[in-house]
Amino acid sequence: MIGNLNHVAIAVPDLESAAAQYRGTLGATVSEPLELPEHGVVTIFVRLPNTSIELLHPLGEASPIAKFLERNPAGGVHHICYEVKDIHAAVKRVTADGYRALNPTPKIGAHGKPVVFLHPKDFNGVLVELEEA
Amino acid sequence: MIGNLNHVAIAVPDLESAAAQYRGTLGATVSEPLELPEHGVVTIFVRLPNTSIELLHPLGEASPIAKFLERNPAGGVHHICYEVKDIHAAVKRVTADGYRALNPTPKIGAHGKPVVFLHPKDFNGVLVELEEA
Repeated sequence: MIGNLNHVAIAVPDLESAAAQYRGTLGATVSEPLELPEHGVVTIFVRLPNTSIELLHPLGEASPIAKFLERNPAGGVHHICYEVKDIHAAVKRVTADGYRALNPTPKIGAHGKPVVFLHPKDFNGVLVELEEA
Repeated sequence: MIGNLNHVAIAVPDLESAAAQYRGTLGATVSEPLELPEHGVVTIFVRLPNTSIELLHPLGEASPIAKFLERNPAGGVHHICYEVKDIHAAVKRVTADGYRALNPTPKIGAHGKPVVFLHPKDFNGVLVELEEA
């Protein structure tokens, strides 16, 4: 069912410094910051040959990332995203096996595609995003 | 400098159940367990089309994963691994920029290739492995 690892999202306390580190020291291709007010985040994409790293920083007061950074001041992996062909079929299969979706009804994610987040407690402590790709 | 994301390593409290979840519910190609006593881990590889997920479980008493699972009983992302062409050049560049390598002298990693781990506090709270590939 799952296909490519679409991205690994890392919440970072200092977006400029993280971007400079990936661009400079690690020598990767790094995008400009993209503000996504409806998601409460600013993102910078690190484009690797086979997948992407998404650097996330809070935007606005209700950002879901702000709480994460309070608990993890140095930052950390916020979620990982797997691609699926059919998001509705994917949710059905996951929930039929007794695992919890945080939003059983797909919503439009940061890439403009339907996404569902799965409960980290049901997935080895990892917040998993499924994205229809 | 960094190339592909070689793998995302997830420490899991129950290896069999995590493997069954990835094989069954998520429909991925999952390897048999591989014991690596010299690294204190049992690993199972989840092969995605573009990269791998490495499920890690403690093996033996001195396992570095045991401590991680004590702090994170549900599991969690333990590290992410980027490929580099020349591990010695990579360490030189990273440390020249003031970032810390946990083992500045490369050691042989779980895949039989030279690896260096970078300090999570210097990399947005994420334990980063560089692997010569």
